Amino acid sequence: MEKVTPRTLSGFMELLPERQVLFDKMVEALRASYALYGFTPLDTPLIESSEVLLAKGGGETEKQIYRFTKGDSDLSLRFDLTVPLAKYVALHGNDLTFPFRRYQIGKVYRGERAQRGRFREFYQADIDVIGDGTLDIINEAEIPSIIYRCFDTLGLKRFVIRVNNRKVLNGLFELLGVGGKAGDVMRTIDKLDKLGREKVLGLLENDVGVPEDVARRIVDIITCQDTGADPIEKLGEYRGRNAAFDLGLEELATVTKYMSAFGVPETHFTVDLTIARGLDYYTGTVYETAMLDHPEIGSICSGGRYDNLAGYYTDRKLPGVGISIGLTRLFFVLEDQGYLNGALLTAPADVLILPMTEDRAPAIALATMMRQEGLRVQVYSENKKFKAKVSYADKLKIPFAVFLGEDEISQDLVTVKDMATGAQTTASAAMVTAAVKAKISGLREGAPVKEPQK
Amino acid sequence: MEKVTPRTLSGFMELLPERQVLFDKMVEALRASYALYGFTPLDTPLIESSEVLLAKGGGETEKQIYRFTKGDSDLSLRFDLTVPLAKYVALHGNDLTFPFRRYQIGKVYRGERAQRGRFREFYQADIDVIGDGTLDIINEAEIPSIIYRCFDTLGLKRFVIRVNNRKVLNGLFELLGVGGKAGDVMRTIDKLDKLGREKVLGLLENDVGVPEDVARRIVDIITCQDTGADPIEKLGEYRGRNAAFDLGLEELATVTKYMSAFGVPETHFTVDLTIARGLDYYTGTVYETAMLDHPEIGSICSGGRYDNLAGYYTDRKLPGVGISIGLTRLFFVLEDQGYLNGALLTAPADVLILPMTEDRAPAIALATMMRQEGLRVQVYSENKKFKAKVSYADKLKIPFAVFLGEDEISQDLVTVKDMATGAQTTASAAMVTAAVKAKISGLREGAPVKEPQK
Repeated sequence: MEKVTPRTLSGFMELLPERQVLFDKMVEALRASYALYGFTPLDTPLIESSEVLLAKGGGETEKQIYRFTKGDSDLSLRFDLTVPLAKYVALHGNDLTFPFRRYQIGKVYRGERAQRGRFREFYQADIDVIGDGTLDIINEAEIPSIIYRCFDTLGLKRFVIRVNNRKVLNGLFELLGVGGKAGDVMRTIDKLDKLGREKVLGLLENDVGVPEDVARRIVDIITCQDTGADPIEKLGEYRGRNAAFDLGLEELATVTKYMSAFGVPETHFTVDLTIARGLDYYTGTVYETAMLDHPEIGSICSGGRYDNLAGYYTDRKLPGVGISIGLTRLFFVLEDQGYLNGALLTAPADVLILPMTEDRAPAIALATMMRQEGLRVQVYSENKKFKAKVSYADKLKIPFAVFLGEDEISQDLVTVKDMATGAQTTASAAMVTAAVKAKISGLREGAPVKEPQK
Repeated sequence: MEKVTPRTLSGFMELLPERQVLFDKMVEALRASYALYGFTPLDTPLIESSEVLLAKGGGETEKQIYRFTKGDSDLSLRFDLTVPLAKYVALHGNDLTFPFRRYQIGKVYRGERAQRGRFREFYQADIDVIGDGTLDIINEAEIPSIIYRCFDTLGLKRFVIRVNNRKVLNGLFELLGVGGKAGDVMRTIDKLDKLGREKVLGLLENDVGVPEDVARRIVDIITCQDTGADPIEKLGEYRGRNAAFDLGLEELATVTKYMSAFGVPETHFTVDLTIARGLDYYTGTVYETAMLDHPEIGSICSGGRYDNLAGYYTDRKLPGVGISIGLTRLFFVLEDQGYLNGALLTAPADVLILPMTEDRAPAIALATMMRQEGLRVQVYSENKKFKAKVSYADKLKIPFAVFLGEDEISQDLVTVKDMATGAQTTASAAMVTAAVKAKISGLREGAPVKEPQK
């Protein structure tokens, strides 16, 4: 037969079994974290009508979309989980109860130029809370605690959640007389991280046309935390001059106030007035999350408050707040830095039973009994030498091998080998099962991420 | 803003929250069942190069494929999970340990004409065991026990697993002198269910050209179980006349022999010589699974043994055995028949906390504490009347509502309402949490499927 060379498309993640298990454990950690906050799981099609998916217009994204026809239909693959959510809520709104809290973990598609760390098919893990007409500020205050819970459950400890408020920024620009240039000012201060203070000041003056003293004042205010000042106190000096600013400042104070009740340690939360996040969509609190030891990676979980989820589908006003974790990228970033927990049990089975007799019935019956007890058991079935059988357990890192020969069967015993220590014990099937269960439950513990010790 | 009418493509499943939770519980039940048998989870891209995906040639399937170009690439969406597995094993074979046991639960795409019960995007839940060169018959014997475990865990009780062996059928046709017409004979007897004995006999004689006495004998043999005969005993009469037949018969006997050790009750397993399953791919044991009370639905889990998984990619001989459950179709079939367990906890949260004071800190701190205990908790945040707040818990079927007013806070107590019974209790937060945890753990039990009582 003529052969076709098997290959996987560039930019598409395909993992070997051990890494797949680690990835799945990350998904599971996020699912469990989201569920604790009362979010319901959602699953929407990967394909939508192009008319529906691109209703908002795509801009930069539109070029990257996988769009094609099938029969008479103009179809597109989803490029994020927000547009499908907007469609879902607009379409099924009458069957939903608001505030509607959903999480969705799924693949999205963007035909970006493939390069290291860039994926064309990747997982996003999103949550959103959608209100019907209104949505209380408490929902914005709750988000950092969910971010904290997610990363803490994943096993990441050294990170910080940075919070800002778009109303504060817009209001500040207005009350300083540069409200008409808010968009450009925002885009420019967003580069503080990369370009530094002096260059940004130059750009604000020369490119955006902000008077020198105003530019300096803006940069002084939004970087006040660098000099040890409390940003909320600092902003207080400008209170009473602009309604949007005052509201934003109050929101920021509320979000900050509830952090300890939400269980977010002070070390993991900060108000950072330089966080801008996108330009038109967000209208209130905005979030970024940074790894303390790897600021170069940028934000690993971002989001914010928006006023209108589905304006291009419905007149119903649907304000919301949400965050997104780019899970595929995060996985590769963590792996690159040696942050994946190699000690985790990734074997496909807890126990490998090696039958030593021609009749496999006793081995199979033992496996059936152990599975009833919740153990993951494989009966090694191939006709290989003893050494090859044990090596199978070794290669797959199966923690326990059970030998069942004539002697054991006649005495109603089994022999178990702890593959990690090499220790071998012969005892009744019930005793071995209980002992293995106890040890496995210890091995199953542990988070998928483990930061290297310094 | 001009509006686009939101819609979901026909043939694409999109569930409301309660049903989504039930569907997810079905997925979880299959995952847990597969894992008990030592299968490792796999995830492969939804998009593959068309050259790779269609290497085998598609026949009927090819017309249904979602195929498109992006830049210079000719791409296709996967239409099953078997071809991606073949590619995976051919590509990564040197990094895998054989027998390689994987499960995969994922979406596949077929542009079928949309009609009731037909989906264009649907979940398949597959397992396969792949050997390197050889694969022991024990793997074929194990499959019915996995099918049994899957449906039993899902909550389906009244079903039967039907098993046959392709070598037996092929060998039988050969030794009866119609081996050259095996394909046509197979296709014809496959219609016994639909057309009945007399019509099939007519077709065998007139269309396929099988002599009358041979046709009668074939039909007599393969339907012998209908007259109470033991098929394996009956087939024994033909032993010693054809090597393939003898091997197949031995395999069938082995598979049957181990059923009780594998924990499959006699009521749920039968040898059925009329099961043919496809034509070229399968080479040994084949499986079908039928609901006893709904035979009209056809097989809900099918598969079999094959000799060469990836012949179009590699010279390496990779025999295997696998089964597939069409999960999306199964979900709708079960729902149509009222088989979904409506008593299951599908609420997004276990507890809804209703803060009765302006300061939400006590409510939030209580929620944080309850989440630490593993409860799924939502703080109701909107500024609504008391009745609307309680109705929110009601609509979402959240089992417990907790009220936290000035009185409770000053006395360090909380009031909890069991939404099902209406019973209301005031006690310490710790006591309420413990009581709710105990009740929730009861509510979380139960399978997603529950057969109607007759």
